Amino acid sequence: MNGADALLETFVDNDVTACFANPGTSEMQFVAALDRQPKMRPVLCLFEGVATGAADGYGRIAERPACTLLHLGPGYGNGVANLHNARRAFTPIVNVIGDHATYHRQYDAPLNSDIPTLARPNSLWVKSADRADDVAALAADAISASYGPPGGSASLILPADAAWNETTRRTAKARVPTRPAPAGEAVDAVAKALRAAAKPVVLLGGQACRAEALAQAARLAAHGLRVMTDTFVARQPRGAGIYSPGRMQYFGEAALADLEGVDLMVFVGTVTPVAFFAYPGRPSVLTPEGCETIVLTTRAEDSVAGLAALAEALGAPAQGPVQPLKRPDAAPAGGLTAQSAGVAIARHLPEGAIICDDSVTSGGGVAVPCMTAAPHEVLALTGGAIGAGAPLAVGAGVAAPDSKIVALCGDGAAMYTVQALWSIARENLDCTVVVFANSSYRILNIEMGRTGSGNPGPSASKLLDLGDPRIDWVSMAKGHGLPAVRCETAEDFEKAFAGAMAQKGPMFIEAVVP
Amino acid sequence: MNGADALLETFVDNDVTACFANPGTSEMQFVAALDRQPKMRPVLCLFEGVATGAADGYGRIAERPACTLLHLGPGYGNGVANLHNARRAFTPIVNVIGDHATYHRQYDAPLNSDIPTLARPNSLWVKSADRADDVAALAADAISASYGPPGGSASLILPADAAWNETTRRTAKARVPTRPAPAGEAVDAVAKALRAAAKPVVLLGGQACRAEALAQAARLAAHGLRVMTDTFVARQPRGAGIYSPGRMQYFGEAALADLEGVDLMVFVGTVTPVAFFAYPGRPSVLTPEGCETIVLTTRAEDSVAGLAALAEALGAPAQGPVQPLKRPDAAPAGGLTAQSAGVAIARHLPEGAIICDDSVTSGGGVAVPCMTAAPHEVLALTGGAIGAGAPLAVGAGVAAPDSKIVALCGDGAAMYTVQALWSIARENLDCTVVVFANSSYRILNIEMGRTGSGNPGPSASKLLDLGDPRIDWVSMAKGHGLPAVRCETAEDFEKAFAGAMAQKGPMFIEAVVP
Repeated sequence: MNGADALLETFVDNDVTACFANPGTSEMQFVAALDRQPKMRPVLCLFEGVATGAADGYGRIAERPACTLLHLGPGYGNGVANLHNARRAFTPIVNVIGDHATYHRQYDAPLNSDIPTLARPNSLWVKSADRADDVAALAADAISASYGPPGGSASLILPADAAWNETTRRTAKARVPTRPAPAGEAVDAVAKALRAAAKPVVLLGGQACRAEALAQAARLAAHGLRVMTDTFVARQPRGAGIYSPGRMQYFGEAALADLEGVDLMVFVGTVTPVAFFAYPGRPSVLTPEGCETIVLTTRAEDSVAGLAALAEALGAPAQGPVQPLKRPDAAPAGGLTAQSAGVAIARHLPEGAIICDDSVTSGGGVAVPCMTAAPHEVLALTGGAIGAGAPLAVGAGVAAPDSKIVALCGDGAAMYTVQALWSIARENLDCTVVVFANSSYRILNIEMGRTGSGNPGPSASKLLDLGDPRIDWVSMAKGHGLPAVRCETAEDFEKAFAGAMAQKGPMFIEAVVP
Repeated sequence: MNGADALLETFVDNDVTACFANPGTSEMQFVAALDRQPKMRPVLCLFEGVATGAADGYGRIAERPACTLLHLGPGYGNGVANLHNARRAFTPIVNVIGDHATYHRQYDAPLNSDIPTLARPNSLWVKSADRADDVAALAADAISASYGPPGGSASLILPADAAWNETTRRTAKARVPTRPAPAGEAVDAVAKALRAAAKPVVLLGGQACRAEALAQAARLAAHGLRVMTDTFVARQPRGAGIYSPGRMQYFGEAALADLEGVDLMVFVGTVTPVAFFAYPGRPSVLTPEGCETIVLTTRAEDSVAGLAALAEALGAPAQGPVQPLKRPDAAPAGGLTAQSAGVAIARHLPEGAIICDDSVTSGGGVAVPCMTAAPHEVLALTGGAIGAGAPLAVGAGVAAPDSKIVALCGDGAAMYTVQALWSIARENLDCTVVVFANSSYRILNIEMGRTGSGNPGPSASKLLDLGDPRIDWVSMAKGHGLPAVRCETAEDFEKAFAGAMAQKGPMFIEAVVP
């Protein structure tokens, strides 16, 4: 066997069984080895940002890493934005970055670049497997590193000769670390601080927003505590039967108004909240002045155990509140808006669906009615690099073939990684992509005012507007091989979305919104 | 005026007058300042890889930098692949990378990342303008740095507060360095070595492949010397009235066979040629065994002066050979191939056209008949990161509004940066995009055999094939707002291409080739 075979054997031996790939010449040995390793599922992505976003979606759902296969520095570069989002989601991913043969690097051939430096900012771990005999052990190390906790990207550079040379080191075992529970004294200190506080808030993030942790957090709510989550959460269940905490507001001044008078914030699997952007004369840190802070669990610790122990220490009820099932009775009518689309989505979203949310200004309109929809999971844009929605859907669809996947995308966001549509079609994923087409970077029209930049004139307007020419999303989707429909009214959308949920397979809906 | 105003004033004062942009919140001050600086032309790109590729195309044609406007680390990341190509083309570019306000960085907000590290591998120069008072001076330094020689990217990080704070330092002057001519002794040494050699080759690269240098190189050919160019050249004129040197073969063994017996290689504006990729048992360095090498000019030196001095030292004729005008008489007929498309292109390409070539396996078929077409310029894929063609065309079109721009793209390559089509439509560029649709990463089918990986089986084939589903390029182009036509025969293509050349404005042609 060669180094590429050892890499794949190590991957599948450690439950890494999906590969989101865009290979080139230096990755041909890996590609050939796939034919000898049927347990690895290769998924071709026509742009690396789709591959890395798909690996993020896969990891959030499967809770184990997928691998990506990327072509030297430029291939990795194309994947950077969605790896940034994955870093903020703490998603385990193993990047395989092909490189020139070790002896060829010195000649600085045209595709040569400084891959380790490029990979460092978004990787927990970067190493190059320079010999075939190193591949299995380093691949296992990469898998181990990707789990964290908390998780993240590990980047394994694979020179072409390490892939093609023979080796007898077939495989190695990765460690899957567990999160330690917080010490009893730490839990007691939090309980004591909570008892002493006049107006405390418990803030959840990351693992503390998953189903098991939310059930424990609900007990704190039943005990009378205010519980909130970070604004953007990697994965969180929502809908009937699930506890629904409050959420940190996006804009800093709104967040601080919401937290007015709060004298204690307890962090569970998260850190001090900060404003997404700075604005002249507005706050960066979103804890009220004079508010004390205390950590129940770090991101590396077991928030489920921490929340359960805290609930016990406080003598909280064994169960907390959950959302009722309350789908909107009436189909939406009239003009199509994010709100009316949200009503249709809440009416028809099937149980167990996974929403991949990259819908920016349209997102709020959907979230509200979905609070009491059938239970589903939501994957949010964690790192602020738009273009995550459809790639996340590719990965979620591969990880959860029995779930309906719904990608909700802004039009500006969807354009970044529009090639994801092709992978949805090729893999015949049970995925509906909704693009909210307002023909604008709407958020920037809002942000421009907030940064004190005044109203946009002709040059500025040109950089915020997507409507000239109008993107014809139905043509775009058909070009990528997806069935597609354009909706201009709420009735259109209700019909299209209901139809998409009733069938199995790929579907694209353009929702024309103001 | 604020820092953003100072930045724009410094840019336009130093002839940086085009901005390829995809802004976000942290860049709103720059966007607002554009309304106060009408000499700067903003061009919205819906993905940053389009913006950086466009800046590359602009710089190659205008011979001065454009600026890009990119949104923090992820925005820069999306631009990395085409900045890699620009690095290999030595194109002057100034990247403006927006960042959080300086005081906000410490809080590690979601979009925060290590921008300087990310930018280093593809930048000649990276600095952050942390105060409004620094902006003008650092912008001038960035412009100076981008010129080299040889040129490249300079990356100026612009924190939001440096953009919004007031300053009185309005502008600063950049230096535009000149390339020094080689010393007389160096020229004499090359002349002496050439006289002593039995079978010498003069190899041109970079600046030595521009029009003025080629005219001098032709004198060496007239003197009996064999003159060649690098395989991939940033910008080179071609066609009637222009000297056409040979070209280094792409595959190493073919290159060495072509150079058999060569005992001296003289490098002019380039370095020792190396294989694009390594393959088991095949050579990396493409100089024949025992061949001597000598440098006439480095990439930083003046190759026009060097070639002229060498021609004088050798007593070469005052003029050398040029290509005749010999367009194919007959329109191509029958099945459409890259070759028959090439005949149509050579027949109808207007004088002064600019070809942006990202056509991979289809490129050779076009190049041969264009050797005697009307004189035109060719911008090649210098760094091997596919997805450069249509973005280069955006930039070339902005730099040369009176020239016909023709982008030749492989289908796999075009998908990488397909959003470029929208900018071509929005800017109403006089640009025809031809996509050669063979529904495959054809080059990889060839490379797979060469790397000794055997024939592709089911998994491998899945990673090389683009045909399931078939990309409907006409729908894709229409989705982006371009008129589009699909050609399946040589007659179709002849008609479509002739029509595109006869009109002014954007056009898209899908060329279905085997």
